[in-house]
Amino acid sequence: MLAQYDLSALKNEMRREELSGRPATMWRYHELLPVRTPQSVQSLGEGMTPLLPAPRLAPKGLKQTAQVFVKDEGQNPTGSFKARGMSAAVSRAFELGVRGVITPTAGNAGAAMSAYAARAGLPAYVTAPEDAPQACIKQAHLYGAEVELLAGLISDAGRLATERAIQRGLFNVATLREPYRVEGKKTMGLELAEQLGWRLPTAIIYPAGGGTGVVGMWKAFSELYSLGWLTESPLPRMIVVQAEGCAPLVQAWNQGSTEATPWPSDQATTQAAGLRVPSAIGDRLILQAIRESAGTALSVSDEEMKQMVHYAAQQEGMLISLEAAATLAAYHRLLANNSLSADDEVVLFFTGSGLADLGLPG
Amino acid sequence: MLAQYDLSALKNEMRREELSGRPATMWRYHELLPVRTPQSVQSLGEGMTPLLPAPRLAPKGLKQTAQVFVKDEGQNPTGSFKARGMSAAVSRAFELGVRGVITPTAGNAGAAMSAYAARAGLPAYVTAPEDAPQACIKQAHLYGAEVELLAGLISDAGRLATERAIQRGLFNVATLREPYRVEGKKTMGLELAEQLGWRLPTAIIYPAGGGTGVVGMWKAFSELYSLGWLTESPLPRMIVVQAEGCAPLVQAWNQGSTEATPWPSDQATTQAAGLRVPSAIGDRLILQAIRESAGTALSVSDEEMKQMVHYAAQQEGMLISLEAAATLAAYHRLLANNSLSADDEVVLFFTGSGLADLGLPG
Repeated sequence: MLAQYDLSALKNEMRREELSGRPATMWRYHELLPVRTPQSVQSLGEGMTPLLPAPRLAPKGLKQTAQVFVKDEGQNPTGSFKARGMSAAVSRAFELGVRGVITPTAGNAGAAMSAYAARAGLPAYVTAPEDAPQACIKQAHLYGAEVELLAGLISDAGRLATERAIQRGLFNVATLREPYRVEGKKTMGLELAEQLGWRLPTAIIYPAGGGTGVVGMWKAFSELYSLGWLTESPLPRMIVVQAEGCAPLVQAWNQGSTEATPWPSDQATTQAAGLRVPSAIGDRLILQAIRESAGTALSVSDEEMKQMVHYAAQQEGMLISLEAAATLAAYHRLLANNSLSADDEVVLFFTGSGLADLGLPG
Repeated sequence: MLAQYDLSALKNEMRREELSGRPATMWRYHELLPVRTPQSVQSLGEGMTPLLPAPRLAPKGLKQTAQVFVKDEGQNPTGSFKARGMSAAVSRAFELGVRGVITPTAGNAGAAMSAYAARAGLPAYVTAPEDAPQACIKQAHLYGAEVELLAGLISDAGRLATERAIQRGLFNVATLREPYRVEGKKTMGLELAEQLGWRLPTAIIYPAGGGTGVVGMWKAFSELYSLGWLTESPLPRMIVVQAEGCAPLVQAWNQGSTEATPWPSDQATTQAAGLRVPSAIGDRLILQAIRESAGTALSVSDEEMKQMVHYAAQQEGMLISLEAAATLAAYHRLLANNSLSADDEVVLFFTGSGLADLGLPG
């Protein structure tokens, strides 16, 4: 279930140059977003995060030449890319006149939904595994959400959210259960094309839990071609990274499958809470995007992520989450095994800030 | 010691409309910043933070009508407005070819300097009171800075930084010891004018520790008038808020002084580390700006700040630091005593994100 727009009409009505004077949020692309009335938009300034050249993120010896860029999603409100999807979904829910919103969460999504619900003046309800990061739960609480913790994984929280949504008459914004969040995430792809001067990089490395960021960007590129805003640029290789302790998409990719078998719940272990997602609901779409783009999927260890948190901070002054650091670990791995070379233009999606992790021990 | 530009030449060369297509960072105003060569600029995407209408931040009964806006500085890299000053200062230091940079810090400034030093590939040294927030110290460490803690206050850390700068040949970027940080902070004022369509609000409420944000904005407005980019708009009332436990500027204001007596060090107590500054080095300039603008200075308690952290999160989905929350407490106080009315257009500077505080107990 994905939103469709009348792109041929828009193609006649609008030129991409009109964007340049618009506000620096994802709502600059409002013609491509599922909210009809401007007054329904619930914005905290999300989107148009910086695209930063970051050559020193490359391994030693390649720092002079590496064509590596960072899309710094940690500068979004609530500290992660989740703000985009929730700004879109809560805005549309508000426009539809819902009574309140609910989501299951492994971490940042619950906090982001709660923030936008507060902004909209709507009640918020969050279901989460009891081992979800304390900081995320506390953040959702601060925004005034009701939070229900349960023994289990994000998939169990998903079932509980479905139940509670029916019982309480709440609009469920669980990943890909509604068509709006992915539209918000799509703007990462729109911005990337605009920020690069209407072309795309050689490769994109993205950390996939639910993986709808990849689905969204893939949809964005398709829409940009339909609009004629992208023309000659080939599509980027879509590279998905997961945690060794929970890698259903990587397993499916390695087996040549078109869909992913859920990771056994009791074996889903990684400290990167956003990657502790045993079953990506957009699995087919994600695997299709990887296949069509000659991309790949790989997993990295928690230890590698932690090392890369330090590396990004020391090399380029960027404080990132474990999930974001997974992309940097993947970049180093793919350079080492010659799947990428230093002169490939690669964009790492640093999906979340490391600020909220400063309170953790160690 | 403040930087001067040839504004009459610039007035002839550049129209304010040229800004609209430029990147959404503070470097869009590079003609008004003290860095000569574009390749010296050390940017992590700082500035052009959103200006958000936030009427529900008003007290009950006024939420329908209140003309209150937030400048959300927590969306800067490193999580606070300190990024602006440090981006400017470290860029200029890099351009000058320094060996390394040093700053004393009560919290966020040390982290911000360390981030930009890492970005520039320069060694960083930070001196701080041993009771500075753990999260800030950890953040500076992550960026690779050398951190020296001492028993005492920010003023003692300042003296130590002066010593270490000489011993090690480091460029000292302590507040107003060099002219560049205030130029970076100035961009808050430039952006505010541009985002409001080249006019200014009725009042600005700003939390003052060192208080150079106020000095910077005041300088910005003056430059904008000289350039003819601001014309008819009257200057805003500059309202400074401090913590009850450390309020040298408020005391000076109440006594009608043109300069502030340092707060007794052993009595400087507030959990808002950025406000635990017993002696604001720009005291005369700040008091002058308040006086010239018919502004005021007031102090609020830590308890009020904590309540307002919750209020901002629940009412508008904004997660802010204690320092930022002080502005909201001041706004409520000034409405209550009729110093402001709901239809005054007021901008609160939310100087820092609350993300890093999520790790704190409670």
